[in-house]
Parts: sequence; structure tokens; C-alpha cells
Amino acid sequence: MQRKPRILAISGSLRTGSHNSALVRAAGALVPAGSDLEWDDSLGLLPMYNADLDTERPPRTVAGLRARFAAADGLLIATPEHNASIPAALKNLIDWASTTPLAELHGKPVAILGASPGALGTARAQLALRQILASLGAEVLTKPEITVFRAHERIAEDGTLTDEFTVRLLTELITALLARIRADRPAATLQRAQSA
Amino acid sequence: MQRKPRILAISGSLRTGSHNSALVRAAGALVPAGSDLEWDDSLGLLPMYNADLDTERPPRTVAGLRARFAAADGLLIATPEHNASIPAALKNLIDWASTTPLAELHGKPVAILGASPGALGTARAQLALRQILASLGAEVLTKPEITVFRAHERIAEDGTLTDEFTVRLLTELITALLARIRADRPAATLQRAQSA
Amino acid sequence: MQRKPRILAISGSLRTGSHNSALVRAAGALVPAGSDLEWDDSLGLLPMYNADLDTERPPRTVAGLRARFAAADGLLIATPEHNASIPAALKNLIDWASTTPLAELHGKPVAILGASPGALGTARAQLALRQILASLGAEVLTKPEITVFRAHERIAEDGTLTDEFTVRLLTELITALLARIRADRPAATLQRAQSA
Amino acid sequence: MQRKPRILAISGSLRTGSHNSALVRAAGALVPAGSDLEWDDSLGLLPMYNADLDTERPPRTVAGLRARFAAADGLLIATPEHNASIPAALKNLIDWASTTPLAELHGKPVAILGASPGALGTARAQLALRQILASLGAEVLTKPEITVFRAHERIAEDGTLTDEFTVRLLTELITALLARIRADRPAATLQRAQSA
Repeated sequence: MQRKPRILAISGSLRTGSHNSALVRAAGALVPAGSDLEWDDSLGLLPMYNADLDTERPPRTVAGLRARFAAADGLLIATPEHNASIPAALKNLIDWASTTPLAELHGKPVAILGASPGALGTARAQLALRQILASLGAEVLTKPEITVFRAHERIAEDGTLTDEFTVRLLTELITALLARIRADRPAATLQRAQSA
Repeated sequence: MQRKPRILAISGSLRTGSHNSALVRAAGALVPAGSDLEWDDSLGLLPMYNADLDTERPPRTVAGLRARFAAADGLLIATPEHNASIPAALKNLIDWASTTPLAELHGKPVAILGASPGALGTARAQLALRQILASLGAEVLTKPEITVFRAHERIAEDGTLTDEFTVRLLTELITALLARIRADRPAATLQRAQSA
Repeated sequence: MQRKPRILAISGSLRTGSHNSALVRAAGALVPAGSDLEWDDSLGLLPMYNADLDTERPPRTVAGLRARFAAADGLLIATPEHNASIPAALKNLIDWASTTPLAELHGKPVAILGASPGALGTARAQLALRQILASLGAEVLTKPEITVFRAHERIAEDGTLTDEFTVRLLTELITALLARIRADRPAATLQRAQSA
Repeated sequence: MQRKPRILAISGSLRTGSHNSALVRAAGALVPAGSDLEWDDSLGLLPMYNADLDTERPPRTVAGLRARFAAADGLLIATPEHNASIPAALKNLIDWASTTPLAELHGKPVAILGASPGALGTARAQLALRQILASLGAEVLTKPEITVFRAHERIAEDGTLTDEFTVRLLTELITALLARIRADRPAATLQRAQSA
């Protein structure tokens, strides 16, 4: 019995009107029929990571996060850049997800991208994110690299991606992620995507 | 009128019985007479950073943090390593402190160190922390490097530093931090330290 | 018609009696029957990279290097740590290999490891190497991580690996590299490895 | 007896017509009267670093490099980006300079910058360079950050800096480097700079 490949999508920003949340929303619209993209909405609900709270009965929001990680065939993460690295909220989500075998990132395909108003488009945050994910054994895609610099010129106030080039790159990234998911998973368990 | 040099000390761990909190406590005892070390205790009290909350009237805990940063002549930060980087809580504290001119890290001397039970002693977290602080213009000390690996063999359950070598390194680090503070600040405004 | 999977192995050290060259030699002995490990010996023969020399008729040693990269199904790289990064000679080899489509690292599986006399066992050099290889689209394995610290206690003067744990990790790394090579390549073109 | 502050300037590129060499040349013209900027021209002459050659009688070019490092009050380094890091030739120069107490980088002020034709302007290479220099104890300046992206639009074919903003940033960087040199060195030994 086949099922659709499942992508769990995460925006690293808590800000209303975030460019990175806009990227995740755009990704949801670009995912081809025959695959699912679910937006993880727990970023702002998780407590700050504290090993003392990381017991066999973790906070309920943490349990939900881990269940979504476990069910996902791959991840898509859009990160802002705060002080040359990823935001605290995104680090927190990853730290909570990573301390249980259930949410195992080892061997899981992950696509990363990011948007910022500045000239570097989160290039440094993405290096930091890649390093964090590699330490967890995740299979972070290498191409295409998407650093949406001067994001306010490419994303409208209502969150619409107005830049054709960025849309094309994002489509390529999703295609690459789904290809990697299919290469990694037993063919029988996943349904082949149809072009939308 | 002279005053003592002030060090603001931060442990990146929220865990009771943290090795890094033990390092900060030990630092407090090693600071020479004629200088002050204050422990910032807001790590677990700050809300998760969200640009929407970062207004002219920030949360009260944030205002307190920024006031302590502004008053400090230098910082001492002990960081755990979570997934090859610094903990979310520490990133959060730095992100809150960094978005106001009041708490300006630019040009402020910062000493970093870290302890972990593993073989690398937070070497990777310290690289990440150094990169974050450099992006803020902080003057991060380079020597001595203190990576307390196999921390449980060097720090007792009650938090006492039992390893002479670590005590010596920590003393050197504090000395280097105070020397840098004195080199940077107008001589008249700081009181010369006396050996304890 | 099947052929054996081919691993190209590189030691980042030019030093006679190098611990990293010892690791590569040990890897050669551990590779299972049914696969090949070739040692690239051009590290010390390549000119310093200069874009002006990187023409359609590159130096002969460069052409040879690129041909070996093109023929390899995967790479194994053992790196020393010089000044918190990889040695100039290893960077030079990678830079020469990377500017031609022939030697394409994109999508090629790469296993990395390293040995040093110090406490960190090249952990920082491996982070740097991983970042360089990711920028080229290489598929750098994430596990096992092999940081051979206090290498002189684990590798004899004659280059023999005397530490059982390191031998086991190295065997795991080779197994993981071969598994990744087989997962990536059309099954028909590669011969299945037999346990030695 | 006073002497002028001495800056040793290094371009990380061997390419004729290099944008980074153009930056170094421009820096030479912008240095104020009352200070010296000497261009180190040994980048292409040094042998590849090999610990076996690093004896009490190093190659002659290496001895010259180390003497220039020892005589310099501060360094200015312009780096290209090759594969998300610094070029092999620049790493080689740093590795040769760093293994002797004579050329001691510990405590020496270093200004870094870089130019590239791409969108990131060597941001990743500068992170790598900063990490390498910090491991050597160098005092790497944090501001201004100079990432000359789309360098061909800012630097003419003959190497002239045609972009006013880049000229201004470079002037600020030189001013910051000289200020740091003066803060670090006993006032009596350095002559005060006069505005050109």
C-alpha cells in the first residue's frame, strides 16, 4: 500500500509578516500533487530547552513536535539570520527534536533556505544550520543554495513571492528534496509524485 | 572617582547541577579583590526572541538584561554544547541583548569557555559562539582556550572544581579579561585590582 | 557488466610518518574484497592553485588528479588540523579538482576523518572540510565521526593502528561509504562487496 | 625615538588582475602619511607547507616572510573565496608564518576584507579566515565588514577602485587598524599618523 511522501516544513521566524514564513507558505503551494507538505506550527509554543524538562514525560508540545518529525520523510527549513547564526527559536525546536530516537534526524533528508533584508541572504545562518544538522546525521541537500537577499524586493507585503527566479529555485529545491526522499525510502512505501 | 571593573557572567545552561554553571560559580570565587563578578540570572526568564516583541517597551526581564550588559565592562560566558552549537537559551539571551544600542557589545571584551561530558569539551560550540560574538563586534579573548572535556571527572557533584589545571586556566582567563578591560577603558575610571 | 566500487583515498599530510597517512594505509587494508581503494599520491606534486594556470591545458599532475576524481565512486579523506582548519596542501588539491566538470564532486559520497596529537583530534579541521565539501555539493557522510585524538597513543611509529576502537570505527566508516556508493549508483554497474 | 606604525598587507590571490590585489593596492594609496604599508609578495614563492621542511633552517622565502611578520605592527589581508573558504596559497602563507615564535600572530591586530564576482563577496571565506586567525590569537578587527560583492562592478580592469562606498569602507578599515595598533603598542614607540 503506497502513501504520499511527507514533508514537514518549518519557518525559523516568529515574526508576523516574516519573509521566511512566506517562503514556507510558497513552498506549500509549489509542492506537486502526490506529496504532502505540513507546516510545523510549534515554534512559538515550545518551552526553552532545559535538560531537566527533557524526561520520559516531556511537555505536550514537545511530544507533538517529535511525532511530526517521526512521521516526516523529509524536512524543509527556512531560516532568518540573527547575529550570523540561526534564531534561538529554531535552535530550540531542533534541540527538543534531537534528544529522542523517535524524532531521529539521522539519515533524514533536509532542504534549507533563508531570506533576509540584507546583502548576504542568511548565508552565514545557513552555514551554522548545516553544521548543526550534520552533527545530527541529517542528509542536508547541497543544491540549489537559496539565499534570498534583499528579501523585501522579492516578497510582497502580503507574503507573495514576486521574484520569478526565487520561485524557480524553490521549485528546484522541493524537487530535489522529493527525489532524495524517494531515493532513500523503499519504493513500495511511497507514491510517485505527479506534476501539478 | 574610581570604580571596580565589572564582569557580567553568564552560564548557558538551565540545568540544575550544570557543569557550566559550576564554572561560573568558580569564576566568581577566583575574581580578585578590586573587581566585581555579577551572575546574570535571566537566562530562564526571558521570552523567546520575537522581533514583534522587540519594541520600545520590551518585556521587563529584557530591560533588566540590557541594563546589566550596559553596566558591564566585560563578559564571561560558559557554554554547553548542544548539537555542535550553543544552546537555544544562550542564543536567545544574546539576541535580546544585541538589538539595542544600550547593550552594545561592540568593543566589549568577552571571555568564553565551556564544559561537556564528551571528548571535545564544547570546542564546536565555542567556535559557533565566537562567530556570533564577532558579528556583534565583541572583542572575544583568544587565550587561554578552555574546553573542559570529560567534565564529570573535573567537577564534583556539588559543583566544586576539583581539577587544578582547570582552576589555573580559569584564573588565567579572568586575569586576561581584566587586563583587556583595563587596556580598553580610561585608566582613571577603573580601580586597579589587588591580588586576593 | 559489473565492476568494483572504487574509493579514492587522500591523506592531507605531506609529512613522512604522518598519522593521517597511516589512517589511509589502514583503510586500504580494511576495504573488503570486491572493492578497490586507490591512494591519490599527487598532494605534494600539484602546483599552488592559480586561476591563471587553470586553463584548458592544466598542468599534467592536475589532469591526472582530475581523471582519478572522475573515475572514483567515492572519496575517503584523512585530514590533519593546521590552525583550526585543513592544511594548505589539501585545500589546494580540492581547489584544483573542483573547477572542472570532469572531476565533479556534486553528489559524490565522501568519508572524512582525521588524527592529531592534541585533545580535539581535528574536530575543527573536519568542520572546515565539511563546509568546503558541502559547497561543492559532495555527499559528506555524517557517521561515524572519527577524531583520532592523542594519535601517538593509537598509531605506532611504523604507522600501525594499535587501537582496536579506532580500527572498528574506520571499518564502520568504510562500510558506510560503500553502502552510500551502492545506494547512489545504478545497481547493475557495481559489483556487490564480499566480506574479506 | 619614534617610528611609523607598519602594516604588512597580503593579497590571497595569485591571479594577475586579481580584485583582491587591487584592494591591497588601493589600501597602500589610502594609508595616511606617518604610517607604512608594505605588500608581502611571497605568496607565490613559498613551498607547500610540510612539517618535514619546517626545521631550524627553513626555506629562504619562509625566513623572509617570518621576518616581515615579526616587523609588522598589524596585518591587512584581502582574501578571495575558493569553495567557501580561503585559497590554498593564503592558508599556506599563514601556516608557514604561524609555527615560529618569531612571527607570532598572538595579540597582533589584523584587518580582513575580500572581493568576489559573486553575490556573497567572500563572506564565507572571511568567516573561515577569522576562525583560523583567532586560533592563532590574532586580534581580528570586527568592523567595518567589507565584502565586495559583484567586484567587477566596483573595480575597473586596471585595478582602480571605482566605487566610492568601497573606498570609504576601506579608509575606515585602515583607520580602525591603525587605531588598534596604537592602542596596543607603547605610545612612545609609534609616531602619530597625520592625515594625508
